[in-house]
Amino acid sequence: MTQLEGREELQALEMFWEEVSIPMQDVWNPIPPAAPDPKQFALGERGLSPAARVNALNTLAAYLDHKRDHMLGYQVTEDMNGYQEDLSRFLKHHLNNLGDPFQVGGYKVNTKVVEQAVLNYFAKLWHGEPYNQTNKESCWGYVLSMGSTEGNMYALWNARDYLAGRLLIIDEETSGTHTYDQPVPDPHNPNAYKPVVFYSEDTHYSFAKAVRVLDLRTFGEYGREHEREYKNPLGGSWPDEVPSEPGPDNKPSTYGSGRIDIGKLKVLVDYFAGKGHPIIVSLNFGSTFKGALDDVQKVCDTLLPVFVKHKLHEREVTYTNGKKHKRRGFWIHVDGALGAGYIPFLRMAADEDKYEFKPDSEIPKFDFGIKSKSGNITKDMVSSIALSGHKWMGAPFPTGVFMTKVKYQMQPPDKPEYIGSLDTTFAGSRNGFSPIVLWDHLAKHPHDRQVSLITHSHRMAAYLEQQLTRLEEYWIKKHNKEKGFLQVARSPLAITVRFRKPNARIVAKWSLSTVTMLMTPGNPETRAEIAHVFLMSSATQDKIDAFIADLHAPDAFNPNVKEPFAAPTQTFDGITLEAVNPFGDRGFA
Amino acid sequence: MTQLEGREELQALEMFWEEVSIPMQDVWNPIPPAAPDPKQFALGERGLSPAARVNALNTLAAYLDHKRDHMLGYQVTEDMNGYQEDLSRFLKHHLNNLGDPFQVGGYKVNTKVVEQAVLNYFAKLWHGEPYNQTNKESCWGYVLSMGSTEGNMYALWNARDYLAGRLLIIDEETSGTHTYDQPVPDPHNPNAYKPVVFYSEDTHYSFAKAVRVLDLRTFGEYGREHEREYKNPLGGSWPDEVPSEPGPDNKPSTYGSGRIDIGKLKVLVDYFAGKGHPIIVSLNFGSTFKGALDDVQKVCDTLLPVFVKHKLHEREVTYTNGKKHKRRGFWIHVDGALGAGYIPFLRMAADEDKYEFKPDSEIPKFDFGIKSKSGNITKDMVSSIALSGHKWMGAPFPTGVFMTKVKYQMQPPDKPEYIGSLDTTFAGSRNGFSPIVLWDHLAKHPHDRQVSLITHSHRMAAYLEQQLTRLEEYWIKKHNKEKGFLQVARSPLAITVRFRKPNARIVAKWSLSTVTMLMTPGNPETRAEIAHVFLMSSATQDKIDAFIADLHAPDAFNPNVKEPFAAPTQTFDGITLEAVNPFGDRGFA
Repeated sequence: MTQLEGREELQALEMFWEEVSIPMQDVWNPIPPAAPDPKQFALGERGLSPAARVNALNTLAAYLDHKRDHMLGYQVTEDMNGYQEDLSRFLKHHLNNLGDPFQVGGYKVNTKVVEQAVLNYFAKLWHGEPYNQTNKESCWGYVLSMGSTEGNMYALWNARDYLAGRLLIIDEETSGTHTYDQPVPDPHNPNAYKPVVFYSEDTHYSFAKAVRVLDLRTFGEYGREHEREYKNPLGGSWPDEVPSEPGPDNKPSTYGSGRIDIGKLKVLVDYFAGKGHPIIVSLNFGSTFKGALDDVQKVCDTLLPVFVKHKLHEREVTYTNGKKHKRRGFWIHVDGALGAGYIPFLRMAADEDKYEFKPDSEIPKFDFGIKSKSGNITKDMVSSIALSGHKWMGAPFPTGVFMTKVKYQMQPPDKPEYIGSLDTTFAGSRNGFSPIVLWDHLAKHPHDRQVSLITHSHRMAAYLEQQLTRLEEYWIKKHNKEKGFLQVARSPLAITVRFRKPNARIVAKWSLSTVTMLMTPGNPETRAEIAHVFLMSSATQDKIDAFIADLHAPDAFNPNVKEPFAAPTQTFDGITLEAVNPFGDRGFA
Repeated sequence: MTQLEGREELQALEMFWEEVSIPMQDVWNPIPPAAPDPKQFALGERGLSPAARVNALNTLAAYLDHKRDHMLGYQVTEDMNGYQEDLSRFLKHHLNNLGDPFQVGGYKVNTKVVEQAVLNYFAKLWHGEPYNQTNKESCWGYVLSMGSTEGNMYALWNARDYLAGRLLIIDEETSGTHTYDQPVPDPHNPNAYKPVVFYSEDTHYSFAKAVRVLDLRTFGEYGREHEREYKNPLGGSWPDEVPSEPGPDNKPSTYGSGRIDIGKLKVLVDYFAGKGHPIIVSLNFGSTFKGALDDVQKVCDTLLPVFVKHKLHEREVTYTNGKKHKRRGFWIHVDGALGAGYIPFLRMAADEDKYEFKPDSEIPKFDFGIKSKSGNITKDMVSSIALSGHKWMGAPFPTGVFMTKVKYQMQPPDKPEYIGSLDTTFAGSRNGFSPIVLWDHLAKHPHDRQVSLITHSHRMAAYLEQQLTRLEEYWIKKHNKEKGFLQVARSPLAITVRFRKPNARIVAKWSLSTVTMLMTPGNPETRAEIAHVFLMSSATQDKIDAFIADLHAPDAFNPNVKEPFAAPTQTFDGITLEAVNPFGDRGFA
């Protein structure tokens, strides 16, 4: 709600109406097609007859069409840009971009030429230099097969091994040096190669999972495991995550913007850097629930002096063969799953008068262009960025982009008897269809068109916020609810609006993403159930109107109303699965 | 070559011919389309004009068509089953199977009902029980977004945390227990929660990478890191990998079948189990270069007594709150990327007279049906299986299936304040298109049709082996080469044939996968360059004939012949990338 303050046109909204027009109910509220029956899809030894197979696919297609048209809750555009028409012919190949995107591979049915174009586009968009193997400042990356989870995992893996002192591609390789050699321990600092991870409490759960997979430690875990020597410099017990900014009037951060609390981050990083640890910081740029944008530039400007103080801005790594390499002792990763795709264009909108766009908050910098200063030391600060392709741009399945710089690339673990090959990506096989999808979107969407898409999203977000505010007036007057009943909130620059979770029927109909949280941590009585809508470029005013109309139903916020057409929770053998928990989604990774 | 011995019809082949017919050269050897020019795909601020975009896609499509028709080297079928016609309509949705495949999710534009059908199909095919949350012996899994690398990583992650004593889903969760709790250290065994990994030297490089990502240790790494207490029980320095079976006449394993040496595996496992370590064994079922099938049943029968001897068949894990859970101290994973897809049908072919198929070797068991005995102890042995969907079945991009049992499932790391949701898969977002592809293939291919596909593959493998043997005669007579010049070899039951690497032009034309190895390890003079062809169900006799015809060219095996139409190795800005290494592919992950 706090974000409404100061917006006069909304505060002035005092009108009240008794009758609500229900727009386009015939279009938006047809009788929904039945959910596909698991029995129809059961695969036995004899396959399906051609007719049964087509029938099953038809049922699925009708159901998906309906669900797609009513999807509002997740940060994916449902505008598929005509991929079916233009790209379906590529479904007849097995497209596999095996290995490094910039190296020739043996499997020729690949789309590396397309992938390279996509990567170089983003390198430039993010103020980096296109890939050039001989330029260690240039950007290297690859198109992801899984989406940003893979990008975050890869970033953490690279950061872990970089900070643990493993060899880099740019390090001169000496005969006999095993590429995965450990450096010689630092006699003065037992923690020199033990990185510690920092990220905010608004970070997506998949990031915590990636930290576990890599057997890394968050500062909180590390502190708990060493409780004798480590005390939380913020006081109290160790949290796993860096607090986010507090809400207005010093309310808990659950009421806040969702941005990382830079002051507290500084205190924590200073404490662990003081213990000799190298530092990994992951920042959200478009957080999954609040759509919050951490101020990456400000974080960098705040932390560089801390790194310099503890000599982490540059340090020397010594190997068993006596070789020494210099490198930094920190890694800043930007999880730009959503925001790295649209913020560059939002900035153009704000910078050029012709777009007549006034942002509600300063647009933070986040990319490879960031340089910070401390005394006479200047450093480029961002080491890696992950972007989802299916969120802002749109794709028929998850994809994305991971990007770092040549100077940070690890030597991939490899067998010495195989010659000269760099196995630089996460998986062996890589999806070769996705680069065509991203390329096709970018080819069709020049910058000015991208600007139009994001300003449309912002207009729709403001419109929904306005309509929800009107709706709250309706509930106050009609059903005697108190002010603040709808818990409407929107973070600065976010294209998502949060509000009280409606009943399960509405949640399912509009594919809303919801979260349950204690607004005052530790106090079960402050439990709140919140939903959000993401205003992707495919959102329209008609769709929002139809959604708002549904929220006028007398039982719209009655928690006892169940989902009428539940998706199947049985195996196809008809065994009912017991105790399937409600799935509390928190957005996409 | 060894595999030819004992096959009378091939040994009897003594014919020689002067003239070689060049079949269908007009069809198979047209002037190849030019490789796509990076400049044509460059993405700038203004996108591409509609005509330029379509032109670029047309160039790409023509190039891919040509390359697909000539692809022989990788274990992917190029038969796409009409996916373009039947499934392209699903390209207009963003299909995302967020979270657990058996749990209802908030994002309704998903294909979990299809994914469940695919998973239950494989559970039954692999002698397991379809998923049922209340039956801990039933099979749980999910459809992979990356392919088998992801399946292997997930298996290793699950194995690591299972053996490190982390909580399982079936463990009764006690209030206050953090799901990622460590167990109480075993006072009698400091290694009780330090698993060690074993896999053979024929294992794909991506597996070594997965071990690194998870910060696990192979037995060799562990031995080297603890060189004072640990001595290699096989003598000599520690290898990273378990030796494969020796070649005939006690030649090095490079000449052998590619199957794991079970005797040596037993010695190594016994040694580390004796030091108190829990054990992870990963077996190849269709290795990437030789197509070898580890004898999973025999490995299990050999190792169970070792596990029983060291009390790893069942042990007790104690938590800080005093709770105790029983579980085993070993994990056997089957990397069935290729073989888990076709061996069930090869077995049917061998078991039923009507198929008139006689395998050249016993068909090993590999799946959840394996039970081993030691004294009066009987155990089901296989804990997890990974399968690639794009290899045997065919898919437009990498996909696959991971499967384990409910009783092994970890508690996913999760935030306590989010209620009741199990985030059980590797990534947050998951490809929802791939399950439709797998489902469609299985719906169209009843078991009898699958049997026909695999027996066709075997016929084609035998045919290629025969043609290569004839070809060697040609090279001996025509060019005075010695016997064994072509280094033709085929492992038992494999659908791949190995032979001397031809020149770079031929390698590129037919997308051959090649490897360089020292046939006698440590001796650089025994360096051999080997190529292989995979006889997937899409391989035809015509295609093999055209390929064999190319190998009659006088320069066919001249290593100085370069690839004439190299794929681009430049950035689109025209900067030539220097020192691009030859990419020694070793098959797919």
